[in-house]
Amino acid sequence: MALIVQKYGGTSVANLDRIRKVAKRIIRVYSAGNDVVVVLSAMAGVTDSLIQLAHQITNDPNRRELDVLLATGEQTTVSLLCIMLESMGCPAISLLGHQAEIVTDRAFGQARIVGIHATRIKELLTRRKIVAVAGFQGRDQEGNITTLGRGGSDTSAVALAAALKADVCEIYTNVDGVYTTDPNLCKDAKKLHKIAYDEMLEMASLGAKVLQSRAVEFAKKFGVPVHVRSSFVEEEGTMVVEEEDMERLVVSGITYTKDEARITLTKVPDRPGIASTIFTRIAEAGIVVDMIIQNTRKGGLTDLTFTVPKDDYRKAMAIQKEVAKSIGAEQVLGDEHIAKVSVIGVGMRSHSGVAAKMFTVLAKENINITMISTSEIKISCVIEEKYTELAVRVLHHAFGLDSP
Amino acid sequence: MALIVQKYGGTSVANLDRIRKVAKRIIRVYSAGNDVVVVLSAMAGVTDSLIQLAHQITNDPNRRELDVLLATGEQTTVSLLCIMLESMGCPAISLLGHQAEIVTDRAFGQARIVGIHATRIKELLTRRKIVAVAGFQGRDQEGNITTLGRGGSDTSAVALAAALKADVCEIYTNVDGVYTTDPNLCKDAKKLHKIAYDEMLEMASLGAKVLQSRAVEFAKKFGVPVHVRSSFVEEEGTMVVEEEDMERLVVSGITYTKDEARITLTKVPDRPGIASTIFTRIAEAGIVVDMIIQNTRKGGLTDLTFTVPKDDYRKAMAIQKEVAKSIGAEQVLGDEHIAKVSVIGVGMRSHSGVAAKMFTVLAKENINITMISTSEIKISCVIEEKYTELAVRVLHHAFGLDSP
Repeated sequence: MALIVQKYGGTSVANLDRIRKVAKRIIRVYSAGNDVVVVLSAMAGVTDSLIQLAHQITNDPNRRELDVLLATGEQTTVSLLCIMLESMGCPAISLLGHQAEIVTDRAFGQARIVGIHATRIKELLTRRKIVAVAGFQGRDQEGNITTLGRGGSDTSAVALAAALKADVCEIYTNVDGVYTTDPNLCKDAKKLHKIAYDEMLEMASLGAKVLQSRAVEFAKKFGVPVHVRSSFVEEEGTMVVEEEDMERLVVSGITYTKDEARITLTKVPDRPGIASTIFTRIAEAGIVVDMIIQNTRKGGLTDLTFTVPKDDYRKAMAIQKEVAKSIGAEQVLGDEHIAKVSVIGVGMRSHSGVAAKMFTVLAKENINITMISTSEIKISCVIEEKYTELAVRVLHHAFGLDSP
Repeated sequence: MALIVQKYGGTSVANLDRIRKVAKRIIRVYSAGNDVVVVLSAMAGVTDSLIQLAHQITNDPNRRELDVLLATGEQTTVSLLCIMLESMGCPAISLLGHQAEIVTDRAFGQARIVGIHATRIKELLTRRKIVAVAGFQGRDQEGNITTLGRGGSDTSAVALAAALKADVCEIYTNVDGVYTTDPNLCKDAKKLHKIAYDEMLEMASLGAKVLQSRAVEFAKKFGVPVHVRSSFVEEEGTMVVEEEDMERLVVSGITYTKDEARITLTKVPDRPGIASTIFTRIAEAGIVVDMIIQNTRKGGLTDLTFTVPKDDYRKAMAIQKEVAKSIGAEQVLGDEHIAKVSVIGVGMRSHSGVAAKMFTVLAKENINITMISTSEIKISCVIEEKYTELAVRVLHHAFGLDSP
């Protein structure tokens, strides 16, 4: 008998038929004697519709009020699920973020969980209730409703699993696990049975949209075993676990993203404080910079290249043109047609030669690398967008991910 | 400078255009220096859609969870209104039922307000915020979400006005006030400038669907001046006030309802406990009986007639057929084609002859009266349904309600 936290995403609760399927799955686990806490997202598309509705009023809706509006999405799914479970004879109770005492900071729209008082949930579990908690939402110290940002329900689930010391946190999504790469792009992609927290973090932040990064950070911090699986099939998915529990693979996956754009400032005077000037202006505009590369030229000049989200590209270019003028840089170049391809694996910590192999494989296909960034467990290369699919496939094969 | 509570119904906030008009009206009142608390209903049709959604799952949805679902309706409108007000440069903040500390009993779906701790609202008003409170909802002592039943937002508004000692509670609806009778039925109907709480209570419970009865009871109990008016026009509506503040009219209005059906048990043995048997069974089935009339025949027998909501007619007939058999009554007669026409006026307290005049007027048109019921301030007659319009018109004229 275990305590299991299950999280179902928007596609799993997209309509009453699917909610019925979810209810049946929950009842099976509950009837086997387990305690079950369920965390739900809003029905697929609902959060986006609500955001659009608010944007019909203004481009910049009040953030506190937008969170009040968005919180209705999960409120709807948890109540419908509980009506469903009760109608099937199963004792169920819904809790909204504030009722589950998920306390966050006050950053509306991207709040961070600062604590969960799980006393009420524990008491309800003692009475053998199935507890359905609205994901994505919490309350601040004053009782204002907050939301946790895109994919926040994953974080709700993992945080609850940590607070309840659950045996496992199952993340039900529309894919059946984490793959060695995008199966839509590479038909030889294989499902991973296990992946380390750190690898999953790199996967999540680099574009494999299976699990929110913050949820993985939480899981790692509190050692919550996470099981990523599909609500549409029975078979097991991928376990996200401690590194020690992994078999020794050098590379676990290849990821890519086309969501970034590159900006280069040429012939920047190479004096202290210049980089600060450039990136402070960008940060003030709320733009998140990913990779940064600096190449020193001769004559006290340097070229500075960085990437920003494609959505912020125009704004960032406009800012940099002003900055370039004020600091006396030569010109600002930009490129929206880039992709970032990454090789990920905790095995890299103890293996050398992965980077060299990656560069060789790409060179063999005449794919030019324009930026490189590395961490302990990943190597990312920026390439021309049109080579994305080819790069992913050849790397996937070269690192032996297509063999059983 | 006054403290004004405004309540807008579902048709007034049915879409973003209408919410914009509501926002403009609020800003006018606020900019004139008044403190404004706004109570909103869900968008027209939303509550019904949510109920239908729950009924697609089961005929008898769990009541606690249904309230969680329904509460999303008002949550949506208050957040949208505040986004609108803020985008127009007006400081606004939404409060849900639990945030406004509207505490109710635990009768899900028809909860009664037991207290409002208006401290947070008062503090927000001191900071010159426009406070938008979600109507229709509250929380019980344990923090569960409750709803107040049909038209509950009226009660929310009046209760808040009482708690805040507001100068007036304005109820914005899709009609521009309370009329001497239904204007759709009698083109000479006149708008009343004032109406007493007790008259409004009779109007509300007898079928003039302008204001929820419980809201009027609340207003009467706490002496809250209520102003019923339209959100679509500027002109003033009807003030609901203390009886002492009224001009002396004998009759203020004529109302009617076609929502009831009549059931008669003939030749009922006239012994103690018989009426109890009959009405206990009906009450156990959750059916609300309105009028009850007993005519004693000779020989220790009596005829017993009563009315029930038309929706419950079949169920009530089936029950009474069983009851009739068990108590030895002769037969059960039923009639779904009846109407109840009522003459209402606090002036009746001090005037005799109103009943006689009513009967005379109906008799002159050959309208047969099958049941009569009276209170201090109203006389109701059950007649054949087909005479409803005629009866209303001749009574309206006979009591001088069509003269200016």
